[in-house]
Amino acid sequence: MNENKPAIKSLGDMPTSELKKYGHQFVDWIAAYLDEIENYPVLPNIKPGEIKNILPENPPEKGESFESIIADVNDKILPGITHWNHPDFMAYFNSTSSGPGILAELLSAGLNVNAMAWHTCPSATELEEKMINWYKKIFNLPQNFWGIIYDTASTSSMHAIAAAREQLSHLKIREKGMIGRSELPRLRIYSSEQAHFSIDKSVITLGFGLESIRKIPVDEKFRMIPGKLKEAIKEDKQNGYLPCCVVATVGTTSTTSVDNIDEIGTICSEENIWLHVDAAYAGTAAILPEMQWIFKGIEKSDSLVINPHKWMFTPIDLSLFLTKKPDVLKRAFSLSAEYLAGENEDATDFMDYGIQLGRRFRSLKSWFIMRYFGVEGLQNRIREHIRLAKEFAEWIDENPKFERMAPTPFSVVCFRAHPQNITDEDELNELNQKLLDNINSTGKLFLSHTKLNNKFVIRIAISGIRTFEQNVNDARNLIEQKLNELLD
Amino acid sequence: MNENKPAIKSLGDMPTSELKKYGHQFVDWIAAYLDEIENYPVLPNIKPGEIKNILPENPPEKGESFESIIADVNDKILPGITHWNHPDFMAYFNSTSSGPGILAELLSAGLNVNAMAWHTCPSATELEEKMINWYKKIFNLPQNFWGIIYDTASTSSMHAIAAAREQLSHLKIREKGMIGRSELPRLRIYSSEQAHFSIDKSVITLGFGLESIRKIPVDEKFRMIPGKLKEAIKEDKQNGYLPCCVVATVGTTSTTSVDNIDEIGTICSEENIWLHVDAAYAGTAAILPEMQWIFKGIEKSDSLVINPHKWMFTPIDLSLFLTKKPDVLKRAFSLSAEYLAGENEDATDFMDYGIQLGRRFRSLKSWFIMRYFGVEGLQNRIREHIRLAKEFAEWIDENPKFERMAPTPFSVVCFRAHPQNITDEDELNELNQKLLDNINSTGKLFLSHTKLNNKFVIRIAISGIRTFEQNVNDARNLIEQKLNELLD
Repeated sequence: MNENKPAIKSLGDMPTSELKKYGHQFVDWIAAYLDEIENYPVLPNIKPGEIKNILPENPPEKGESFESIIADVNDKILPGITHWNHPDFMAYFNSTSSGPGILAELLSAGLNVNAMAWHTCPSATELEEKMINWYKKIFNLPQNFWGIIYDTASTSSMHAIAAAREQLSHLKIREKGMIGRSELPRLRIYSSEQAHFSIDKSVITLGFGLESIRKIPVDEKFRMIPGKLKEAIKEDKQNGYLPCCVVATVGTTSTTSVDNIDEIGTICSEENIWLHVDAAYAGTAAILPEMQWIFKGIEKSDSLVINPHKWMFTPIDLSLFLTKKPDVLKRAFSLSAEYLAGENEDATDFMDYGIQLGRRFRSLKSWFIMRYFGVEGLQNRIREHIRLAKEFAEWIDENPKFERMAPTPFSVVCFRAHPQNITDEDELNELNQKLLDNINSTGKLFLSHTKLNNKFVIRIAISGIRTFEQNVNDARNLIEQKLNELLD
Repeated sequence: MNENKPAIKSLGDMPTSELKKYGHQFVDWIAAYLDEIENYPVLPNIKPGEIKNILPENPPEKGESFESIIADVNDKILPGITHWNHPDFMAYFNSTSSGPGILAELLSAGLNVNAMAWHTCPSATELEEKMINWYKKIFNLPQNFWGIIYDTASTSSMHAIAAAREQLSHLKIREKGMIGRSELPRLRIYSSEQAHFSIDKSVITLGFGLESIRKIPVDEKFRMIPGKLKEAIKEDKQNGYLPCCVVATVGTTSTTSVDNIDEIGTICSEENIWLHVDAAYAGTAAILPEMQWIFKGIEKSDSLVINPHKWMFTPIDLSLFLTKKPDVLKRAFSLSAEYLAGENEDATDFMDYGIQLGRRFRSLKSWFIMRYFGVEGLQNRIREHIRLAKEFAEWIDENPKFERMAPTPFSVVCFRAHPQNITDEDELNELNQKLLDNINSTGKLFLSHTKLNNKFVIRIAISGIRTFEQNVNDARNLIEQKLNELLD
């Protein structure tokens, strides 16, 4: 061991005196960052490779001072940050982290438990179970739903479709697999044309193949047409397919359209098809009594995903997955290993309900956030976002140079510039692409886009906890100004 | 809005003055927790339901004070914590979080970026790329490996096997799927009898079915027998199977045995079978020059997983996945969506390489830890763990009442009590089960167990950053004392 004598620092962890000192510095750093965040460009003005190139090729041989690490966060990391916590980040489904959520992550890292089995951390398992009940209550969801927290909606939806497959237990896919078995029928997964591409990814991963997804057409409001679903199922059955799963979306990614769960649920019940509801972004709106129509008929669904990390001020990641059929989910994912065997038959081992064995203590975030803000505090914030979006939508509707491209049920508005003298669609697409680029390159606002019926459409998402009326007004002014510059 | 007037707190986030105040309190809380952690029982002495039952049924209508939340962490959460950060936690593969890792999680939550695409956070993407290079250097891995950070080893291995399937591109599984296609051959996945059960879970999830795994026998040191693998492949091919993937393990979960990557790699190269290496726990040991033999022949592998959250003092979760064939991985998981389209062809969009779209800023943890401790500091700690395990193993070997049950290449020792007067295996199993229960119920030490050739075996894992020689000596004494009590 002589040639490897401990250098600088002895064995063991950072001394807790340092943890306190630098912990306080980092807390102050984050507070100052959030106070001054509007001074940063939302989108960094850098090119690929710029950050990589200023970082050293090799890790240091000897430990470095924490001061130098903090200095490099400022000098080398901040210039390449896209500021998701910025009040003018209005792209995608903006996710923001609130103070209580940040502190919960700090605590979770300090405890560093793995909530794989009950006995590997009873508090983590039982707080998770309790938080699932709280979520069910605030979203007014059926009490017979069982829940688990995964990382992302992509993971949640993959688990849903895997459970849908396992429900067809007579096919014995868990044991015998899907391949090389000529006796098996082709399976079909249904979603609307507007469903998130994570459904396609799940279907590829699970071995169904892209061709097994049947995309159901949408109506003029971008909602799955239940009659078309019914026809597709009928036709598929006639052609020897076995319908396996329908994925309906409450709040699609492009336009936040809401599939009719009630009607789709009736079809699925009649046909005994697993209904999975992807409400990753919009589900949070069900915290408002006036928005609970979005889940009408949800008791007919078999599973549901809502991501508190999207619109509930929860640091990424936290995805709430609910199902009426936990036994089917468990059959799809449980395997026992002697080295993990628990002894408590009356306790939940969440590892039996998912692909991931390691599980972070995510429910602390739910707990801190629901308690700190209270249900009413969360309702106020969600309601205000919806109000601001409606105001923005009205402004678009009243402005002759713009056009709204989809209904606005939540806090996302789809629109495009459409000056009356331009009628050519290609020209309009080009104009809007330029408009978006010019807006985003200011660093003052970050919007995203989608395509609807081949039209280039700009999306504004108002769901950040630091986004207020003034930010939306500034956004309006910037959008109008940038359009005027283009038209001049 | 009148009936919903904002109560107590207005809109927006927790004021940053509060974030600072409670942030400092939480940092001090964690420092004190880590200072006093040895006063807590490693395993909580509670029954299922005890934590759940003291938490309220409903979330509060109005927001609560942060003081009350902190009080409840102490009163309601701590009593049900299994203390993974405890120096006497020596069960499973103990994972511990270091100070720099905890601070990195704090920063990650404060920034709250989503590293799905380059432009959604260039720094997160590029720091991740750089950290992968650092890991490759410290573990002395081939430079032509490409890498990505996932959450857990289960996820990493699932991606590996999915890529192995995609490599058989002539089967067109991505497009056409695996089911109902009589022209497809049955595929085979190989692992040793000692491989982790996450491999079985992956195989179920991907639709191969449990029957598609062929478990290869192990030698007396619990290592896959390459000759048996070769025979199995030959036999399978004769019977019309198509070999798809071999999973070898460096550091199996039960005994930390090391499969011979070099020989297995040669077989896989000859047969053109994807070789995935699961080095989730033990891969970290390759930071020591004297341990780099574990990866002999690794250049013949197609993919590799190492979990810094297991033995590199990184808060859960962080799983390093490397592959020689990123294009195959990308083909298995990429799908484009207009609403996410990036513009930088020369930048990496990590979302194209995995099932999860949302991606946390995990590489901050790697950066803080490698810089704070330095390569030498990390080497000292890993080397000390291995030294302590060897000492413990020698103590077992010299003690006539105990028996070592497997070689000790790393920091896990498999042993059992075996007093000379007891020869009946059932009696020995019962004795060791009781011994383990009696040790764990003291709250002074947490060990786990496994079964080897139907023998109940106790495992001690020495890999925590707060675990020192004294803790291992105390563990010895406690084990011996508890055995003597049983034998008296």
